[in-house]
This record gives sequence, structure tokens and C-alpha cells, in this order.
Amino acid sequence: MITHESLQELIDKQTSNTSLTQRFYTDSSIYRHDLQSVIFNQWLLVDHESRIANPGEYFLFDIDDESIILIRGDDEEVYAHFNVCALRGSRICLEEEGTRRHLVCPYHAWSYEKNGQLSSVKFMPESFDCSKISLKPCHVKVHQGLIFLCLSQGSPPDFETFIEGMTAFLELHSTTSAKIAFRHNFDTKANWKLVVENFIECYHCFPAHPELCAVRDRHMIIGAGAGPSSGDASSPEFAASMQRFEEKAAGLDQLPPEVDDYEGAQQFRSAHRAPLRDGCLSESDDGRPIAPLSHGFHDRDGGYTGITFNPLSHMLATNDAAFLFSFTPISPERTNAQIIWLINNDAEEGEDYDIDRLTWAWKITGSQDLIITENNYLGVKSRAYEPHVHSLMETNVTAFCSWYLKNLEASIAGNA
Amino acid sequence: MITHESLQELIDKQTSNTSLTQRFYTDSSIYRHDLQSVIFNQWLLVDHESRIANPGEYFLFDIDDESIILIRGDDEEVYAHFNVCALRGSRICLEEEGTRRHLVCPYHAWSYEKNGQLSSVKFMPESFDCSKISLKPCHVKVHQGLIFLCLSQGSPPDFETFIEGMTAFLELHSTTSAKIAFRHNFDTKANWKLVVENFIECYHCFPAHPELCAVRDRHMIIGAGAGPSSGDASSPEFAASMQRFEEKAAGLDQLPPEVDDYEGAQQFRSAHRAPLRDGCLSESDDGRPIAPLSHGFHDRDGGYTGITFNPLSHMLATNDAAFLFSFTPISPERTNAQIIWLINNDAEEGEDYDIDRLTWAWKITGSQDLIITENNYLGVKSRAYEPHVHSLMETNVTAFCSWYLKNLEASIAGNA
Amino acid sequence: MITHESLQELIDKQTSNTSLTQRFYTDSSIYRHDLQSVIFNQWLLVDHESRIANPGEYFLFDIDDESIILIRGDDEEVYAHFNVCALRGSRICLEEEGTRRHLVCPYHAWSYEKNGQLSSVKFMPESFDCSKISLKPCHVKVHQGLIFLCLSQGSPPDFETFIEGMTAFLELHSTTSAKIAFRHNFDTKANWKLVVENFIECYHCFPAHPELCAVRDRHMIIGAGAGPSSGDASSPEFAASMQRFEEKAAGLDQLPPEVDDYEGAQQFRSAHRAPLRDGCLSESDDGRPIAPLSHGFHDRDGGYTGITFNPLSHMLATNDAAFLFSFTPISPERTNAQIIWLINNDAEEGEDYDIDRLTWAWKITGSQDLIITENNYLGVKSRAYEPHVHSLMETNVTAFCSWYLKNLEASIAGNA
Repeated sequence: MITHESLQELIDKQTSNTSLTQRFYTDSSIYRHDLQSVIFNQWLLVDHESRIANPGEYFLFDIDDESIILIRGDDEEVYAHFNVCALRGSRICLEEEGTRRHLVCPYHAWSYEKNGQLSSVKFMPESFDCSKISLKPCHVKVHQGLIFLCLSQGSPPDFETFIEGMTAFLELHSTTSAKIAFRHNFDTKANWKLVVENFIECYHCFPAHPELCAVRDRHMIIGAGAGPSSGDASSPEFAASMQRFEEKAAGLDQLPPEVDDYEGAQQFRSAHRAPLRDGCLSESDDGRPIAPLSHGFHDRDGGYTGITFNPLSHMLATNDAAFLFSFTPISPERTNAQIIWLINNDAEEGEDYDIDRLTWAWKITGSQDLIITENNYLGVKSRAYEPHVHSLMETNVTAFCSWYLKNLEASIAGNA
Repeated sequence: MITHESLQELIDKQTSNTSLTQRFYTDSSIYRHDLQSVIFNQWLLVDHESRIANPGEYFLFDIDDESIILIRGDDEEVYAHFNVCALRGSRICLEEEGTRRHLVCPYHAWSYEKNGQLSSVKFMPESFDCSKISLKPCHVKVHQGLIFLCLSQGSPPDFETFIEGMTAFLELHSTTSAKIAFRHNFDTKANWKLVVENFIECYHCFPAHPELCAVRDRHMIIGAGAGPSSGDASSPEFAASMQRFEEKAAGLDQLPPEVDDYEGAQQFRSAHRAPLRDGCLSESDDGRPIAPLSHGFHDRDGGYTGITFNPLSHMLATNDAAFLFSFTPISPERTNAQIIWLINNDAEEGEDYDIDRLTWAWKITGSQDLIITENNYLGVKSRAYEPHVHSLMETNVTAFCSWYLKNLEASIAGNA
Repeated sequence: MITHESLQELIDKQTSNTSLTQRFYTDSSIYRHDLQSVIFNQWLLVDHESRIANPGEYFLFDIDDESIILIRGDDEEVYAHFNVCALRGSRICLEEEGTRRHLVCPYHAWSYEKNGQLSSVKFMPESFDCSKISLKPCHVKVHQGLIFLCLSQGSPPDFETFIEGMTAFLELHSTTSAKIAFRHNFDTKANWKLVVENFIECYHCFPAHPELCAVRDRHMIIGAGAGPSSGDASSPEFAASMQRFEEKAAGLDQLPPEVDDYEGAQQFRSAHRAPLRDGCLSESDDGRPIAPLSHGFHDRDGGYTGITFNPLSHMLATNDAAFLFSFTPISPERTNAQIIWLINNDAEEGEDYDIDRLTWAWKITGSQDLIITENNYLGVKSRAYEPHVHSLMETNVTAFCSWYLKNLEASIAGNA
């Protein structure tokens, strides 16, 4: 394990406005710090609550060596427990998802309530008091249908501060009355920071994502392709395009106030709306809708919403669908990039939407990002890799590196 | 490599009556200590000698990065050699088993006698003296047909002390006149200590092994399911059941004195006999015999024998078959769990026994244990894992943890 | 990472005339030193230049975590660049070989000339100066058609000293006017030093390579099977056989002066010619030619040439074909052993040669070496492995171990 001193030295040597030095991407002991100091202190977007609509329905969320059981309780609440039996540590739920009346450990049959309380054991003395034992809880919040976890062993960050300003966007896209239409996991052989960096800049969109660029406005990509302040917003075309869209969206009452907050160690968040390419109503190969208008909209305005909850959790959304992005570290050189496609919960497949049309843009874009990121990781491992000054279209990468280093540093200071 | 100081600190912090703290199960440098301090100082049960009945027959025993050649010599003795040529270190035998007149290294054709003595080399000066070179020997003992190895580079533990009290049980099950009917290796992704802990408690038998429980007496499982003193023996039904069986077995002269010895760093051993479920004559799906009565018995008494030679080496046996269990570390997170089925050497397949009936109970139980143990390992890697006080049916797990820590501590002290 | 002090201690403890102590073959942090101190300071034979005959043709050379682009420039020169984009470090070329007008990074479309100069970027300020940025160059030399790389970050060793005395041999085998007939990569699970040691001694040829021995002179194998001074050259039959061949070859003006230079840290090199088995004209199963006479020869003399450029780079050649051997570390326990078969560039497959006949001897010998070396590695990992005094037919292994340790020591001293 790298010492705090060596890590602080590496942080001090890091130049601003550049990507990180090699070891931050490749060193497995820095990865351990990442988990403790950064990843486990975030509210992570993990899924949509419709996955576990009824009491007893559960799914597992895996991150690094951790497995979390998310289960709907009899009181309709969503509970999150570490998937570790109190007796000898066995995993309790083995399948990725299912339905359970009780959480019964397959090893010694210790049985827990959905809320985590140990309720029944076998062959223990009568004096044994179940009420003192429960599964270790994981911090969990459900907000507008989205499930967020925080794996911190202490207090989680304040959820209200975390979500401030986002609710209006989520209401617009009616995530509360949505359902999951599709899910895909891109198992990416790269350090999590490279997966994040790739997602938060759109400089690579032109060479790498022709399909996505076909539905997006060219000047928007340059100016704010990965959210507000993410690019070079100086062109008059950008300003004009943005103004036209904002007038239209505001007229329909579909323009919540922008969030653009990248300062300090705790904040890397933004939310805004922007126009798709002229003539496009959604992200489809022909520009036509991919699903019925989301419940929260009054009319199609040809725009899309981009929300960055934090570097690992994002949502993009058109007038008719929302796409949840979760980047989850599995090991120093593996990251799961999950995309969930949400549509109105009353839309019917075949009738109202077609899965291939719905998933076209992001299934192909996600596949391209997997290849890009893996090749980025291979190159970063070379002795020839050196951090380079970021371009004007990588300002969010600069912001991310700074956010990451500040979190790391704060944690070292806190533990010193 | 963890320092002796840090390891001693971990040992000191360990609470008694609980499972081990996480690092003992997951740390690869503690695993290295395990090998040196614990595993390589044991007499390990590796196989039955009928596997190499004739001069020149050999098999390989693999443990961690070591490969041992076990070969029957011209003098009918069993020899054990490290599978490493003296010249440049090549493996000499590459196949798992076979027959060799000489042990000829495939690299430079150095040729060794079955007893390990170098006997012929090519293109060496005439002055070269083969008699000074031999394969490095590994300590080996054959007792009642069972082959035991000790990989210690110093003296092995005293074999007589190790085997004391076991011989009468082995004679009863006539392991000397047995043959191997079947063998299965369960390649288990878990630290060896979890594989051992699983085998030495029967608290998990009810939820995890319904087939095994169908042939075992319920009160025996609770009271002594993993050997004498392994459970809660307080129930009157247990005492009654045990007494009925002991009277019957003693009447048939089939009840050797119990061994129950879990004290100190060098001892973790037991042997006893106990009844199967009422009406069961063997561990079969219908309770009927699975093979002819073993040569050492006068009559079927419906009992079974459990022998623990040490935490890694065990034998279970019914009136008609014996099952050898060997748990062998391959890496910090892989363990080979081997089961060998022994029956009378004059029994004929098809005529006297059926392989599927013979192996039914332990093939299914072994498969269940593999899944249990791998899920235990996954859970133990979580930050949420914490040692918990053992139940009354896990007393042997407590004893094992204590035995393991004492061995580790003794070795640190010895090397300080 | 092992400290310089510990490494120096290990070097000091090493006995001469023996193989290396275990850690040199198995320790991953010593492997890191190997790369920096030894491997990356060599001129490595990587391929034949006919692989990239025309401007824009490229191939990738992989070593450890490094990927090098070798590309023919518009000026017909061969350029070598680290396959790492200056912006964020992505790999630029993803396929093993191909043709490119420009080297365009697939991530952000930064475009480099074949000579490595950055020539075009998109969406950068006008002030951005491409001329200051280029791909990191790798030292490269093309000599007599052979491509050599040096990955040193400082100056490479002097190429003239490196190649001195070899040119006459390469001219004789007309490597300049050769073409690649076949290529095979043996992905070998062994440390690179074991792969090298195997290649530079022929003690193992008799037991391990019956096919090769069928085309080689027995006394040559014993006396100089792996080059001059590689064996026991004391037999009169060796001297006689050598003399007969040298007279014949000299008479045909086909006997360049022998190179035999194994002293010091920088030198491990040799070149010589020797006879095949009496009656064999080439290394074929029937002794008959495998391809047309190489352009540099006047007539078949039934001999073969052996060149060792350094421990990782070798060439063997008959009157009609040349075989390039490159041993390339991939990880501490994986090495790529590549063989390239060269013949006259005007020979036509089917007409002038048959691939199966051409590749017979070394495809089978290479396959045997892979098995040998992997089994050597497995044995060397055992606690029972100990360095042993080398035999008279392993003198080059002694020389190699000495060369390796001297290079390692020099590098430690240089960095102290």
C-alpha cells in the first residue's frame, strides 16, 4: 500500500490542466485509496426503483469486492444491506435478482427480515437474542424513482445538497412514472478514471461517435457537448442555437434552471438542457421519436437534458426516454459501465416503442466508448505516456482531475 | 511480505471464539506464512497406495507451486521426490500419473532411479559422480494403505504421535485391503481455511446438505455432526441414540476407543463412530448398502466412522466404503478439495457395486460445499465482514482457529 | 519494488558457473529491473523490413506494456514510434498491421505524419502549434534488411559495435533481398531468462529435439551446438568435421570470420558457420533443399550459420533459408518466442518451395522448446529448486547469467 507521504508527494507533483500522472491510472494501491477516499463517499446512482416494485423483490449491486442487496420492504421502502451474513460472512443472495420473503443465508439458514433484522436462527441457545443482530446497512436514497447508494462507513454526504437543483429536471422527465425498457453492462478493461474522463468530454465525439453526432447539433457538441462549461462556447452559432432552443423550451415551461457546479472537493455536478440537431425530435437514426412523450413534458421541443450527479453517475434524456449511466469500479483495471433505458411506465413494447430503435444511439455509442477507453488504458500504461495540457473541449476532464485530487488530499489530511 | 511484527499484532488482536479477522482469509502474504508455518509442517493425507501398486507406477501431488512425485520403488516402497531436476530445475514427470522404469528428465535426459538416486547422465566428464546427486526427497509414510506426505524442509512431526489411536479405526475399515473406486477434485475458489472450516462443522448440514441429512441421525448431526465435541451434545436423544449404537457396535467388536484431541498447536485430531439414521445401512439414497461389507467388519452395525487426522486430512467411512478427504491449497484463493472413494479390493464394479450409488452422497455433498465455500469467500472479502462468536455447533471451528493461530505464532517465535 | 540494496545482495550471493537463484526467475519486481536495466538497453531484432515494403505500411511490436509502431515513411525510411497519442495517451494503431496515410488517433483524431510529426488537430485554438508535438520516437536501425529496435530512453548502444562482424554473414545469406515466407509466435508461459537459456545451449537437443538432431552433425552438437564456445569441443571428430567443412566453405568463399565475443556487460554475441549432418543440404526431413539457393551463395556447402546478436536476438540460416528468432518479455511469466522464416524474395510458393517442408524443422523444434521451457519454469518455482553447476555443454548459459548480472549491477551502480 502506498504511504500517505508518497501519495501526497504524487499529488503535489501533479500539474494542473493536464491529465493525471501514470500511477493514478495504473497503481493498484492508489486504486484502494480511490475506493476509500472518493468512490465510497459518493451517492452513486445504481438503478431505477421499478426494478424492485413489489415487497421482496431484490437485486444485487456489485462494486469492487462489495455486494449490496437492494430489496423492497413490506413497508414499500427500499432497503440496502451488505450481502454478508453476520455469522461467518457468507453471501446471502447469490443470484443477480429475484424475490425473497426472507433473506435466508444458504450457509447456516440464518434468516433476516427484508429490513435487515435477524429474525430466526436454528440450533442456537434460547438465550440467543436475534434482535441485536442485523445485516450491515448501506446508505440508500430513492429520489424521483432513482436509487442512490453511498457505501461510506461513516455519514454519507448530505443528500439535499447533492440533489439540489436536479429535481426539476427529473420531474420534467417523469422518472417517477418510468419503467426500465433495457439494460446493458459494458465490462470495460480500464481504470475507472479513464471511463469517467471519456464520458465527460465530447472532443472525441466527432471522430468516435458518428451516430451520436448525426443527432446532435455540431455547435452544441463543441460548446457544451458534455454539459455546461464542458467545451469552447465562444462561437456565435453556439449562442444562437442555444438561444433559439431556450426560447422554445421556456415557452413550453420545459427549461429548469441550469446547474453548473464544479468547485471544491465535494462538487462535480451539472444539469442543463440543449437542442438536438435541427429537425431531430429524439436520438434515433431518422430523427423521429423513439417512444411516447414523457409524462412530464407538454410537447416535444427537440432538446435533450444532461445531468451529471457526480463523475460516476449521469443521466441523459430526450423528450421520450432517459438513459442512466453508472460507472462502477470492479478492480484497478476493470470498470462496469451500465446504461439503463427508461421510458413511460404505460408504454407498451411493439405498440409504443421498438427496443432496437430506442437503444440504437447509446448501445452503439457505449460500444464505441468501451473500445476507446480500453485503448486509452493500454496507452496510459506505456513509459511513453505523459500528461498533456487539456484542450478547450476537455475542460471537464481538468475539473474532474482537480476534484479527484482534492478528495484524495482531503482524505489523507483527515487520516493524518 | 507481512512482517513478523505485523503478523504477531494481528494474532494478538484476534478474539477467541470467533472466526478469524479478514486478512487471515484474504492476504496473500499471510498465505505464504500459512504454507511455511502450518501446511508444510503437517502429515498430509494425499492418496491410497493402491494407486501405485506396482514398481514404477507414479502419480503427482500438487500443492501451491510444488509438485511431488510419488512412485513405487523396485523394493516395493513408496518414494516421494520433489519433481525438480537437479541440473536446471525442470519438472521431470509431466503427466498426472503413469509408469516409469527410470525418472528421466525430458530436458537434458538426466536419469534417476525410482528411489531418487541419479544414475545416468549424458555428455558429462567421466569424473562426474552421479552418486552425489539425487532428487530432493519429501517425507512420506504409508500407513494402513494411506499415503501421507510432509513437505517440511526440516524434520517432520513424529508420525507415531500423529497416527496414535487411528490405526484401530483404519483396521476396522480394512484400508489396507481397499482399492480406489472413484476420485473427484473440487477446484474451489476460496482460501483453504474456509474450506477447512466448512468441513469441520455440521451446523450448515441442515440447510445445505438435505441428501446427507437424509442418511444421518438428526440428533447426531446436532450433537457431533463433525466429530466428537463438534456440536451441542446436551440432548437426551443424542445420548440415547449414541448409547444404542455403541452397545451394538461394541457387541460386534466394532468400536475402537474414541480419539478427541484438539489441544495445543500440534493437535487437531479425532476419531469416533456414530450411528447413521435409523434404518440406514449406508449413505445411499435408499439406506441400503453401497458395496460389500468391508473386510474388517463382522457385520453391518449401521454406523459410520469419522476421522480427522488434521484440519486438511479426513476420512469418513460406512460399513462398506471409506471416503478420503484432502484439502490442498493451490493459491491464496484456490483450494483443491479431493474426495477418494475406497471399497474392498476384491469388489467388482457392476457385480458388487454401482459407481453412481456408491458416490451419490458425497459427490452431491461435495458439490454443495464448493458453492457454499466460494460464497463464503466472496462475503469474507467485503468491508462489512466481521468475526462473529461461534455457535454451539461450530466448536470445531473455534478449535481450528485457535490451532491455526498457535501454529503461526510458534513459527514466528521460532524464527524471531 | 525490490531495493537496490537487496538486489545487490542477491547479485553478490550468486555463485558463478551455476544457473541463477530462484528469485531472478520468479520475482516480478526483479523483472521490472530486467526491463529497465537489460532489455530496454539492447538492440532487439524485431522483424524483416519486407513486412513494410511500401510507404504507409506499418506493424506493431509489443514488449511488456509497450507497443511500438514501425512504419515505412514517404522517404522510404523505417520509423518507430511509441503507440501513444500525445493528448491523452490512447493507442493510435489498434490492429497488428496495416497501411496508413496518416497516423490518426481514433480517440480525438489527432493526426501524425508517418515520421511522427503532429500535423493536424481539430477544434484547437489557432495559436496551437502542431510543430512542437510528435509521437515519442523509439530508436530504430535497419541493417541488411533486418529491423532492430532499442527502447532506451537515453542513447542506445553504439550500433556499429553491436553489428561488427555480422554483416558478412548477413550478406552471405542475402537478407537484404529476402522475403518473409512464414511467421509463428510461441506464447510461452515462462520468464524470459529461461527462454533464452534454453536457446543458447544444445545439451538438451539430443533428448528433446530428435528432428533437429537428424539434420545436424552429432559432434557439432556436442562441440558447438549453440554457437562457438558453446560446448565441449575437445573431440577429434569435432575438429575433423569442422575442418572438412571450413575447407569446403572457404573454397567457395562462403566462410566469413567467426565472431565469438561473450565478455563484459555489453557483449553476448557470436557468429559462425558449421556443417549440417553429412549428406544434408538443408534442415529438411530428407536432407534435400527447402528453397532455392540464397542469392549470396555460390553453391551449396551443406553448412549452416548461427548468429547471436544478443541473448534475445538470433538468426540461424542454411544455404537456402534464414530463421530469425526474437524472444520478447510480455510479463514476468510470459515470453513471446517468435520465429520468422526468410527466403529469396524472388522464390515462389508452390513452384520453388513448400511451406510445410520449409518450416518443418523449426516449427517442431519451437513447439518442443515451448513445452520444455514452461516445465522448466514450473520446476524453478519450487522450494526444491537450487542452482547447479553447469555442464560443459552449457557454457553459454554460464556466460548469459554472468552477462545478465553484470548488466543489472552496472545499472544499479549507475543509478546509485
